[in-house]
Amino acid sequence: MTTGKLTIGLDADDTLWHNESRFIAAQDIMREALGPWSERLGLSSTDIDDRLQSKETTNLARYGYGAKGFILSMIETAVELTHGEISGHAIEQILNAGHWMLDHPVELLPGVADVVPALAATHTVIIITKGDLWDQEAKVARSGLGDVVAGVEVVAKKDGATYQRLLERRGVDPDRFVMVGNSVKSDIIPVLDLGGYAVYVPHEFGWVHEQAELPHHHRLFELSTMESLGSLITHLEAD
Amino acid sequence: MTTGKLTIGLDADDTLWHNESRFIAAQDIMREALGPWSERLGLSSTDIDDRLQSKETTNLARYGYGAKGFILSMIETAVELTHGEISGHAIEQILNAGHWMLDHPVELLPGVADVVPALAATHTVIIITKGDLWDQEAKVARSGLGDVVAGVEVVAKKDGATYQRLLERRGVDPDRFVMVGNSVKSDIIPVLDLGGYAVYVPHEFGWVHEQAELPHHHRLFELSTMESLGSLITHLEAD
Repeated sequence: MTTGKLTIGLDADDTLWHNESRFIAAQDIMREALGPWSERLGLSSTDIDDRLQSKETTNLARYGYGAKGFILSMIETAVELTHGEISGHAIEQILNAGHWMLDHPVELLPGVADVVPALAATHTVIIITKGDLWDQEAKVARSGLGDVVAGVEVVAKKDGATYQRLLERRGVDPDRFVMVGNSVKSDIIPVLDLGGYAVYVPHEFGWVHEQAELPHHHRLFELSTMESLGSLITHLEAD
Repeated sequence: MTTGKLTIGLDADDTLWHNESRFIAAQDIMREALGPWSERLGLSSTDIDDRLQSKETTNLARYGYGAKGFILSMIETAVELTHGEISGHAIEQILNAGHWMLDHPVELLPGVADVVPALAATHTVIIITKGDLWDQEAKVARSGLGDVVAGVEVVAKKDGATYQRLLERRGVDPDRFVMVGNSVKSDIIPVLDLGGYAVYVPHEFGWVHEQAELPHHHRLFELSTMESLGSLITHLEAD
Protein backbone atom coordinates (compact mmCIF):
# COMPACT_ATOMS: atom_id res chain seq x y z
CA MET A 1 0.00 0.00 0.00
CA THR A 2 1.31 3.42 -0.95
CA THR A 3 0.29 6.42 1.09
CA GLY A 4 0.71 10.18 1.08
CA LYS A 5 -1.13 13.02 -0.55
CA LEU A 6 -2.55 12.57 -4.00
CA THR A 7 -1.66 14.95 -6.83
CA ILE A 8 -4.88 16.02 -8.50
CA GLY A 9 -5.32 16.62 -12.24
CA LEU A 10 -8.43 18.46 -13.34
CA ASP A 11 -9.82 18.52 -16.85
CA ALA A 12 -11.17 21.98 -17.70
CA ASP A 13 -13.82 22.09 -20.46
CA ASP A 14 -17.14 20.75 -19.15
CA THR A 15 -15.46 19.66 -15.90
CA LEU A 16 -14.59 23.07 -14.40
CA TRP A 17 -16.71 25.24 -16.69
CA HIS A 18 -19.33 25.04 -19.43
CA ASN A 19 -17.82 24.57 -22.87
CA GLU A 20 -19.81 22.30 -25.17
CA SER A 21 -22.78 24.68 -24.78
CA ARG A 22 -20.67 27.38 -26.51
CA PHE A 23 -20.14 25.05 -29.47
CA ILE A 24 -23.83 24.15 -29.60
CA ALA A 25 -24.89 27.82 -29.53
CA ALA A 26 -22.41 28.70 -32.29
CA GLN A 27 -23.69 25.78 -34.38
CA ASP A 28 -27.26 27.11 -33.97
CA ILE A 29 -26.13 30.44 -35.40
CA MET A 30 -24.46 28.68 -38.33
CA ARG A 31 -27.67 26.77 -39.11
CA GLU A 32 -29.60 30.02 -39.05
CA ALA A 33 -27.04 31.74 -41.29
CA LEU A 34 -27.57 28.92 -43.80
CA GLY A 35 -31.37 29.38 -43.71
CA PRO A 36 -32.03 30.80 -47.20
CA TRP A 37 -29.78 28.20 -48.87
CA SER A 38 -31.13 25.33 -46.78
CA GLU A 39 -34.59 26.16 -48.04
CA ARG A 40 -33.56 26.44 -51.67
CA LEU A 41 -31.32 23.35 -51.59
CA GLY A 42 -33.59 21.28 -49.35
CA LEU A 43 -31.07 20.85 -46.53
CA SER A 44 -32.39 19.69 -43.17
CA SER A 45 -30.82 20.56 -39.80
CA THR A 46 -29.56 16.99 -39.63
CA ASP A 47 -27.88 17.34 -43.04
CA ILE A 48 -26.04 20.39 -41.77
CA ASP A 49 -25.08 18.84 -38.43
CA ASP A 50 -23.89 15.62 -40.05
CA ARG A 51 -21.81 17.44 -42.60
CA LEU A 52 -20.24 19.65 -39.94
CA GLN A 53 -19.41 16.64 -37.82
CA SER A 54 -17.74 14.82 -40.66
CA LYS A 55 -15.86 18.01 -41.61
CA GLU A 56 -14.59 18.33 -38.02
CA THR A 57 -13.37 14.73 -38.13
CA THR A 58 -11.59 15.26 -41.45
CA ASN A 59 -10.01 18.47 -40.18
CA LEU A 60 -8.90 17.07 -36.82
CA ALA A 61 -5.45 16.10 -38.10
CA ARG A 62 -5.04 19.59 -39.55
CA TYR A 63 -6.61 21.88 -36.93
CA GLY A 64 -6.48 19.80 -33.75
CA TYR A 65 -8.99 20.37 -30.95
CA GLY A 66 -10.44 23.71 -29.97
CA ALA A 67 -12.59 26.64 -30.91
CA LYS A 68 -10.62 28.11 -33.83
CA GLY A 69 -10.61 24.84 -35.75
CA PHE A 70 -14.34 24.50 -35.09
CA ILE A 71 -15.03 27.98 -36.51
CA LEU A 72 -12.99 27.17 -39.62
CA SER A 73 -14.86 23.86 -39.99
CA MET A 74 -18.22 25.68 -39.76
CA ILE A 75 -17.17 28.08 -42.53
CA GLU A 76 -15.90 25.24 -44.73
CA THR A 77 -19.12 23.29 -44.20
CA ALA A 78 -21.23 26.32 -45.07
CA VAL A 79 -19.27 26.93 -48.28
CA GLU A 80 -19.43 23.29 -49.36
CA LEU A 81 -23.10 22.70 -48.55
CA THR A 82 -24.12 25.76 -50.58
CA HIS A 83 -21.76 24.88 -53.45
CA GLY A 84 -19.99 28.20 -52.88
CA GLU A 85 -23.20 30.20 -53.13
CA ILE A 86 -23.24 31.37 -49.51
CA SER A 87 -22.90 35.16 -49.14
CA GLY A 88 -20.19 37.08 -47.35
CA HIS A 89 -22.86 38.33 -44.95
CA ALA A 90 -23.73 34.78 -43.88
CA ILE A 91 -20.00 34.03 -43.43
CA GLU A 92 -19.82 37.12 -41.24
CA GLN A 93 -22.57 35.73 -39.00
CA ILE A 94 -20.53 32.55 -38.52
CA LEU A 95 -17.38 34.56 -37.78
CA ASN A 96 -19.32 36.57 -35.22
CA ALA A 97 -20.52 33.37 -33.59
CA GLY A 98 -16.84 32.42 -33.34
CA HIS A 99 -15.97 35.72 -31.68
CA TRP A 100 -18.80 35.18 -29.26
CA MET A 101 -17.44 31.71 -28.39
CA LEU A 102 -13.93 32.99 -27.75
CA ASP A 103 -14.96 36.14 -25.87
CA HIS A 104 -17.64 34.42 -23.81
CA PRO A 105 -17.32 34.73 -20.03
CA VAL A 106 -16.35 31.53 -18.24
CA GLU A 107 -19.21 29.99 -16.25
CA LEU A 108 -17.98 27.62 -13.56
CA LEU A 109 -19.86 24.37 -12.98
CA PRO A 110 -21.53 23.70 -9.60
CA GLY A 111 -19.11 23.27 -6.70
CA VAL A 112 -15.98 24.28 -8.64
CA ALA A 113 -15.61 27.74 -7.06
CA ASP A 114 -15.47 26.18 -3.57
CA VAL A 115 -13.91 22.77 -4.12
CA VAL A 116 -10.92 23.73 -6.28
CA PRO A 117 -9.46 26.45 -4.00
CA ALA A 118 -10.06 24.25 -0.94
CA LEU A 119 -8.24 21.29 -2.52
CA ALA A 120 -5.46 23.50 -3.87
CA ALA A 121 -4.77 24.76 -0.33
CA THR A 122 -3.79 21.27 0.80
CA HIS A 123 -2.83 19.42 -2.42
CA THR A 124 -0.94 19.93 -5.66
CA VAL A 125 -3.71 20.61 -8.18
CA ILE A 126 -2.96 20.86 -11.90
CA ILE A 127 -5.37 21.77 -14.68
CA ILE A 128 -4.75 19.47 -17.67
CA THR A 129 -6.66 20.41 -20.79
CA LYS A 130 -6.48 20.14 -24.54
CA GLY A 131 -7.62 22.58 -27.21
CA ASP A 132 -6.36 25.94 -28.40
CA LEU A 133 -3.44 27.02 -26.21
CA TRP A 134 -4.43 30.70 -26.31
CA ASP A 135 -8.15 30.10 -25.72
CA GLN A 136 -7.51 27.66 -22.87
CA GLU A 137 -5.05 29.97 -21.09
CA ALA A 138 -7.52 32.84 -21.50
CA LYS A 139 -10.29 30.73 -19.97
CA VAL A 140 -8.09 29.69 -17.05
CA ALA A 141 -7.25 33.37 -16.44
CA ARG A 142 -10.91 34.45 -16.67
CA SER A 143 -12.01 31.58 -14.39
CA GLY A 144 -9.99 33.02 -11.50
CA LEU A 145 -8.48 29.56 -10.94
CA GLY A 146 -5.12 30.27 -12.60
CA ASP A 147 -3.51 31.63 -9.43
CA VAL A 148 -5.13 29.00 -7.23
CA VAL A 149 -3.74 25.86 -8.87
CA ALA A 150 -0.10 24.76 -8.98
CA GLY A 151 0.02 24.53 -12.76
CA VAL A 152 -1.83 24.58 -16.05
CA GLU A 153 -0.91 22.14 -18.80
CA VAL A 154 -2.44 22.67 -22.23
CA VAL A 155 -1.64 19.58 -24.27
CA ALA A 156 -2.31 18.61 -27.88
CA LYS A 157 -3.66 15.14 -27.01
CA LYS A 158 -4.54 13.46 -23.73
CA ASP A 159 -3.08 10.00 -24.24
CA GLY A 160 -0.93 7.74 -22.07
CA ALA A 161 2.35 9.18 -23.39
CA THR A 162 1.23 12.72 -22.59
CA TYR A 163 0.22 11.87 -19.00
CA GLN A 164 3.42 9.89 -18.48
CA ARG A 165 5.64 12.73 -19.70
CA LEU A 166 3.74 15.23 -17.59
CA LEU A 167 3.91 13.16 -14.38
CA GLU A 168 7.59 12.32 -14.89
CA ARG A 169 8.46 15.97 -15.36
CA ARG A 170 6.71 16.81 -12.11
CA GLY A 171 8.12 13.81 -10.28
CA VAL A 172 4.67 12.38 -9.53
CA ASP A 173 4.19 8.62 -9.10
CA PRO A 174 1.17 7.61 -11.26
CA ASP A 175 0.01 5.52 -8.30
CA ARG A 176 -0.47 8.77 -6.32
CA PHE A 177 -2.18 10.68 -9.14
CA VAL A 178 -5.89 11.16 -9.64
CA MET A 179 -7.40 12.61 -12.80
CA VAL A 180 -10.86 14.18 -12.72
CA GLY A 181 -12.84 14.78 -15.89
CA ASN A 182 -15.84 14.22 -18.13
CA SER A 183 -14.16 12.37 -21.00
CA VAL A 184 -13.78 8.60 -20.68
CA LYS A 185 -11.34 8.57 -23.59
CA SER A 186 -9.14 11.48 -22.52
CA ASP A 187 -9.41 11.70 -18.74
CA ILE A 188 -10.19 8.18 -17.55
CA ILE A 189 -8.75 5.33 -19.64
CA PRO A 190 -5.16 6.57 -20.15
CA VAL A 191 -4.78 7.41 -16.44
CA LEU A 192 -6.17 4.05 -15.25
CA ASP A 193 -3.81 2.36 -17.70
CA LEU A 194 -0.85 4.15 -16.10
CA GLY A 195 -1.92 2.96 -12.64
CA GLY A 196 -3.55 6.15 -11.39
CA TYR A 197 -6.99 6.92 -10.03
CA ALA A 198 -9.71 8.39 -12.25
CA VAL A 199 -12.85 10.29 -11.28
CA TYR A 200 -15.54 10.51 -13.93
CA VAL A 201 -17.83 13.54 -13.65
CA PRO A 202 -20.21 13.20 -16.62
CA HIS A 203 -21.49 16.31 -18.35
CA GLU A 204 -24.92 16.73 -19.89
CA PHE A 205 -23.42 17.08 -23.38
CA GLY A 206 -21.10 14.31 -24.50
CA TRP A 207 -18.88 15.07 -27.45
CA VAL A 208 -18.97 12.52 -30.24
CA HIS A 209 -15.17 12.49 -30.68
CA GLU A 210 -14.70 11.61 -27.01
CA GLN A 211 -17.19 8.79 -26.65
CA ALA A 212 -15.94 5.53 -25.20
CA GLU A 213 -17.40 3.01 -22.83
CA LEU A 214 -16.74 3.46 -19.12
CA PRO A 215 -14.52 0.54 -18.05
CA HIS A 216 -14.93 -1.49 -14.84
CA HIS A 217 -11.95 -0.69 -12.64
CA HIS A 218 -11.30 -0.60 -8.89
CA ARG A 219 -9.54 2.77 -9.24
CA LEU A 220 -12.40 4.43 -11.12
CA PHE A 221 -15.01 6.53 -9.31
CA GLU A 222 -17.98 8.48 -10.58
CA LEU A 223 -19.40 11.73 -9.18
CA SER A 224 -22.51 13.50 -10.37
CA THR A 225 -21.03 16.94 -9.54
CA MET A 226 -17.68 18.40 -8.53
CA GLU A 227 -19.21 19.30 -5.14
CA SER A 228 -18.23 15.99 -3.55
CA LEU A 229 -14.67 15.76 -4.93
CA GLY A 230 -13.11 16.87 -1.62
CA SER A 231 -14.63 14.03 0.38
CA LEU A 232 -13.77 11.48 -2.30
CA ILE A 233 -10.10 12.57 -2.17
CA THR A 234 -10.12 12.25 1.64
CA HIS A 235 -11.62 8.77 1.27
CA LEU A 236 -9.00 7.70 -1.30
CA GLU A 237 -6.16 8.93 0.88
CA ALA A 238 -7.52 7.08 3.93
CA ASP A 239 -7.71 3.87 1.93
CA MET B 1 32.36 33.19 -12.97
CA THR B 2 29.93 30.32 -13.53
CA THR B 3 30.93 27.41 -15.67
CA GLY B 4 29.41 24.18 -16.98
CA LYS B 5 27.38 23.28 -20.00
CA LEU B 6 24.80 25.70 -21.32
CA THR B 7 21.17 24.69 -21.79
CA ILE B 8 20.12 25.75 -25.26
CA GLY B 9 16.67 27.09 -26.17
CA LEU B 10 15.81 27.23 -29.87
CA ASP B 11 13.00 29.25 -31.39
CA ALA B 12 11.30 27.32 -34.19
CA ASP B 13 9.49 29.43 -36.82
CA ASP B 14 12.02 31.18 -39.08
CA THR B 15 14.88 30.00 -36.85
CA LEU B 16 14.72 26.23 -37.50
CA TRP B 17 12.42 26.28 -40.53
CA HIS B 18 10.73 28.63 -42.98
CA ASN B 19 7.45 29.99 -41.67
CA GLU B 20 6.75 33.60 -42.59
CA SER B 21 6.98 32.62 -46.26
CA ARG B 22 3.89 30.40 -45.72
CA PHE B 23 1.96 33.42 -44.42
CA ILE B 24 3.13 35.58 -47.32
CA ALA B 25 2.11 32.96 -49.89
CA ALA B 26 -1.32 32.55 -48.28
CA GLN B 27 -1.77 36.33 -48.26
CA ASP B 28 -0.96 36.40 -52.00
CA ILE B 29 -3.77 33.91 -52.59
CA MET B 30 -6.16 36.02 -50.52
CA ARG B 31 -5.31 39.12 -52.57
CA GLU B 32 -5.97 37.15 -55.76
CA ALA B 33 -9.27 35.81 -54.41
CA LEU B 34 -10.33 39.42 -53.80
CA GLY B 35 -9.41 40.41 -57.37
CA PRO B 36 -12.89 41.08 -58.85
CA TRP B 37 -14.01 43.09 -55.81
CA SER B 38 -10.74 45.00 -55.58
CA GLU B 39 -11.27 46.19 -59.13
CA ARG B 40 -14.87 47.19 -58.58
CA LEU B 41 -14.24 48.84 -55.21
CA GLY B 42 -10.88 50.39 -56.13
CA LEU B 43 -8.86 48.53 -53.50
CA SER B 44 -5.08 48.46 -53.90
CA SER B 45 -2.81 45.66 -52.66
CA THR B 46 -1.66 48.02 -49.93
CA ASP B 47 -5.27 48.64 -48.83
CA ILE B 48 -5.73 44.88 -48.46
CA ASP B 49 -2.42 44.30 -46.69
CA ASP B 50 -2.97 47.21 -44.30
CA ARG B 51 -6.47 46.09 -43.45
CA LEU B 52 -5.33 42.51 -42.83
CA GLN B 53 -2.52 43.70 -40.60
CA SER B 54 -4.82 45.84 -38.50
CA LYS B 55 -7.33 42.96 -38.32
CA GLU B 56 -4.58 40.63 -37.08
CA THR B 57 -3.65 43.15 -34.39
CA THR B 58 -7.28 43.55 -33.27
CA ASN B 59 -7.73 39.77 -33.20
CA LEU B 60 -4.50 39.00 -31.37
CA ALA B 61 -6.17 39.09 -27.94
CA ARG B 62 -8.86 36.72 -29.23
CA TYR B 63 -6.96 34.28 -31.47
CA GLY B 64 -3.39 34.53 -30.16
CA TYR B 65 -0.47 33.73 -32.47
CA GLY B 66 -0.46 31.11 -35.19
CA ALA B 67 -1.85 29.96 -38.49
CA LYS B 68 -5.51 29.32 -37.59
CA GLY B 69 -6.00 32.85 -36.25
CA PHE B 70 -4.33 34.19 -39.39
CA ILE B 71 -6.70 32.26 -41.66
CA LEU B 72 -9.71 33.55 -39.70
CA SER B 73 -8.33 37.10 -39.92
CA MET B 74 -7.93 36.75 -43.71
CA ILE B 75 -11.56 35.67 -44.05
CA GLU B 76 -12.79 38.49 -41.81
CA THR B 77 -10.76 41.03 -43.76
CA ALA B 78 -12.13 39.74 -47.07
CA VAL B 79 -15.72 39.96 -45.82
CA GLU B 80 -15.29 43.45 -44.42
CA LEU B 81 -13.40 44.93 -47.37
CA THR B 82 -16.08 43.74 -49.79
CA HIS B 83 -18.93 44.85 -47.50
CA GLY B 84 -20.11 41.25 -47.37
CA GLU B 85 -20.25 40.92 -51.16
CA ILE B 86 -17.46 38.35 -51.42
CA SER B 87 -18.59 34.99 -52.79
CA GLY B 88 -18.42 31.61 -51.11
CA HIS B 89 -16.04 30.52 -53.88
CA ALA B 90 -13.56 33.23 -52.99
CA ILE B 91 -13.83 32.28 -49.29
CA GLU B 92 -13.07 28.71 -50.35
CA GLN B 93 -9.85 29.88 -52.02
CA ILE B 94 -8.78 31.49 -48.76
CA LEU B 95 -9.67 28.34 -46.79
CA ASN B 96 -7.63 26.28 -49.24
CA ALA B 97 -4.68 28.61 -48.75
CA GLY B 98 -5.07 27.89 -45.03
CA HIS B 99 -5.01 24.14 -45.62
CA TRP B 100 -1.92 24.56 -47.72
CA MET B 101 -0.22 26.51 -44.90
CA LEU B 102 -1.02 23.86 -42.30
CA ASP B 103 -0.25 20.85 -44.49
CA HIS B 104 2.92 22.32 -45.97
CA PRO B 105 6.10 20.26 -45.55
CA VAL B 106 8.62 21.69 -43.12
CA GLU B 107 11.71 23.14 -44.83
CA LEU B 108 14.67 23.41 -42.49
CA LEU B 109 16.87 26.50 -42.66
CA PRO B 110 20.58 26.16 -43.62
CA GLY B 111 22.69 24.32 -41.07
CA VAL B 112 19.79 23.19 -38.87
CA ALA B 113 19.81 19.53 -39.96
CA ASP B 114 23.47 19.22 -38.89
CA VAL B 115 23.83 21.65 -36.02
CA VAL B 116 20.78 20.71 -33.94
CA PRO B 117 21.44 16.95 -33.69
CA ALA B 118 25.14 17.61 -33.00
CA LEU B 119 24.36 20.05 -30.19
CA ALA B 120 21.62 17.81 -28.78
CA ALA B 121 24.13 14.95 -28.49
CA THR B 122 26.17 16.93 -25.96
CA HIS B 123 23.74 19.51 -24.52
CA THR B 124 20.19 19.85 -23.28
CA VAL B 125 18.40 21.43 -26.23
CA ILE B 126 14.78 22.60 -25.94
CA ILE B 127 12.58 23.99 -28.70
CA ILE B 128 10.62 26.98 -27.33
CA THR B 129 7.97 28.30 -29.68
CA LYS B 130 4.68 30.13 -29.67
CA GLY B 131 1.68 29.76 -31.97
CA ASP B 132 -0.96 27.08 -32.42
CA LEU B 133 -0.16 24.15 -30.15
CA TRP B 134 -1.34 21.55 -32.66
CA ASP B 135 0.35 23.16 -35.68
CA GLN B 136 3.64 23.65 -33.82
CA GLU B 137 3.72 20.06 -32.55
CA ALA B 138 2.93 18.82 -36.06
CA LYS B 139 5.79 20.88 -37.48
CA VAL B 140 8.23 19.61 -34.84
CA ALA B 141 7.19 16.04 -35.70
CA ARG B 142 7.52 16.59 -39.46
CA SER B 143 10.90 18.33 -38.99
CA GLY B 144 12.41 15.14 -37.61
CA LEU B 145 13.83 17.14 -34.68
CA GLY B 146 11.24 16.08 -32.11
CA ASP B 147 13.14 12.94 -31.05
CA VAL B 148 16.48 14.70 -31.18
CA VAL B 149 15.82 17.48 -28.67
CA ALA B 150 15.20 17.06 -24.93
CA GLY B 151 11.89 18.89 -24.98
CA VAL B 152 9.42 21.01 -26.90
CA GLU B 153 7.61 23.87 -25.19
CA VAL B 154 4.76 25.53 -27.03
CA VAL B 155 3.89 28.66 -25.09
CA ALA B 156 1.20 31.31 -25.51
CA LYS B 157 3.62 34.24 -25.11
CA LYS B 158 7.39 34.49 -24.91
CA ASP B 159 7.84 36.99 -22.11
CA GLY B 160 10.07 37.09 -19.02
CA ALA B 161 7.52 35.29 -16.83
CA THR B 162 7.19 32.45 -19.35
CA TYR B 163 10.96 31.92 -19.62
CA GLN B 164 11.36 32.12 -15.84
CA ARG B 165 8.64 29.51 -15.20
CA LEU B 166 10.08 27.24 -17.85
CA LEU B 167 13.67 27.45 -16.56
CA GLU B 168 12.56 26.99 -12.93
CA ARG B 169 10.57 23.91 -13.82
CA ARG B 170 13.61 22.40 -15.52
CA GLY B 171 16.00 23.54 -12.78
CA VAL B 172 18.09 25.64 -15.19
CA ASP B 173 20.00 28.68 -13.89
CA PRO B 174 19.23 31.60 -16.32
CA ASP B 175 22.95 32.39 -16.19
CA ARG B 176 23.61 29.06 -17.92
CA PHE B 177 20.84 29.40 -20.49
CA VAL B 178 21.17 30.59 -24.07
CA MET B 179 18.20 31.37 -26.29
CA VAL B 180 18.58 31.33 -30.07
CA GLY B 181 16.02 33.00 -32.33
CA ASN B 182 15.02 35.55 -34.92
CA SER B 183 12.73 37.73 -32.81
CA VAL B 184 14.31 40.51 -30.77
CA LYS B 185 11.10 40.94 -28.79
CA SER B 186 10.39 37.26 -28.03
CA ASP B 187 13.76 35.49 -28.10
CA ILE B 188 16.33 38.12 -27.15
CA ILE B 189 15.15 40.85 -24.74
CA PRO B 190 13.31 38.73 -22.12
CA VAL B 191 16.22 36.26 -21.89
CA LEU B 192 18.88 38.98 -21.55
CA ASP B 193 16.71 40.59 -18.86
CA LEU B 194 16.71 37.32 -16.90
CA GLY B 195 20.51 37.14 -17.06
CA GLY B 196 20.84 34.59 -19.87
CA TYR B 197 22.67 34.62 -23.18
CA ALA B 198 20.85 35.42 -26.43
CA VAL B 199 21.81 34.60 -30.01
CA TYR B 200 20.06 36.59 -32.69
CA VAL B 201 19.77 34.87 -36.07
CA PRO B 202 17.87 37.36 -38.25
CA HIS B 203 15.50 36.06 -40.91
CA GLU B 204 14.88 37.69 -44.26
CA PHE B 205 11.25 38.42 -43.36
CA GLY B 206 10.69 40.33 -40.14
CA TRP B 207 7.18 40.18 -38.72
CA VAL B 208 5.69 43.55 -37.86
CA HIS B 209 4.35 42.35 -34.47
CA GLU B 210 7.81 41.25 -33.41
CA GLN B 211 9.82 44.31 -34.33
CA ALA B 212 11.98 45.85 -31.64
CA GLU B 213 15.41 47.39 -31.63
CA LEU B 214 18.39 45.12 -30.97
CA PRO B 215 19.86 46.19 -27.61
CA HIS B 216 23.56 46.56 -26.85
CA HIS B 217 24.44 43.82 -24.40
CA HIS B 218 27.59 41.86 -23.57
CA ARG B 219 25.58 38.61 -23.55
CA LEU B 220 24.02 39.16 -26.97
CA PHE B 221 25.51 37.59 -30.11
CA GLU B 222 24.44 37.67 -33.73
CA LEU B 223 24.85 34.94 -36.33
CA SER B 224 23.94 35.17 -39.99
CA THR B 225 23.00 31.47 -40.15
CA MET B 226 22.52 28.58 -37.74
CA GLU B 227 25.60 26.91 -39.26
CA SER B 228 27.98 28.55 -36.79
CA LEU B 229 25.92 28.00 -33.63
CA GLY B 230 28.05 25.05 -32.47
CA SER B 231 31.28 27.05 -32.44
CA LEU B 232 29.61 29.99 -30.72
CA ILE B 233 28.38 27.70 -27.92
CA THR B 234 31.91 26.26 -27.51
CA HIS B 235 33.25 29.82 -27.34
CA LEU B 236 30.69 30.86 -24.69
CA GLU B 237 31.46 27.83 -22.57
CA ALA B 238 35.21 28.46 -22.74
CA ASP B 239 34.69 32.06 -21.64
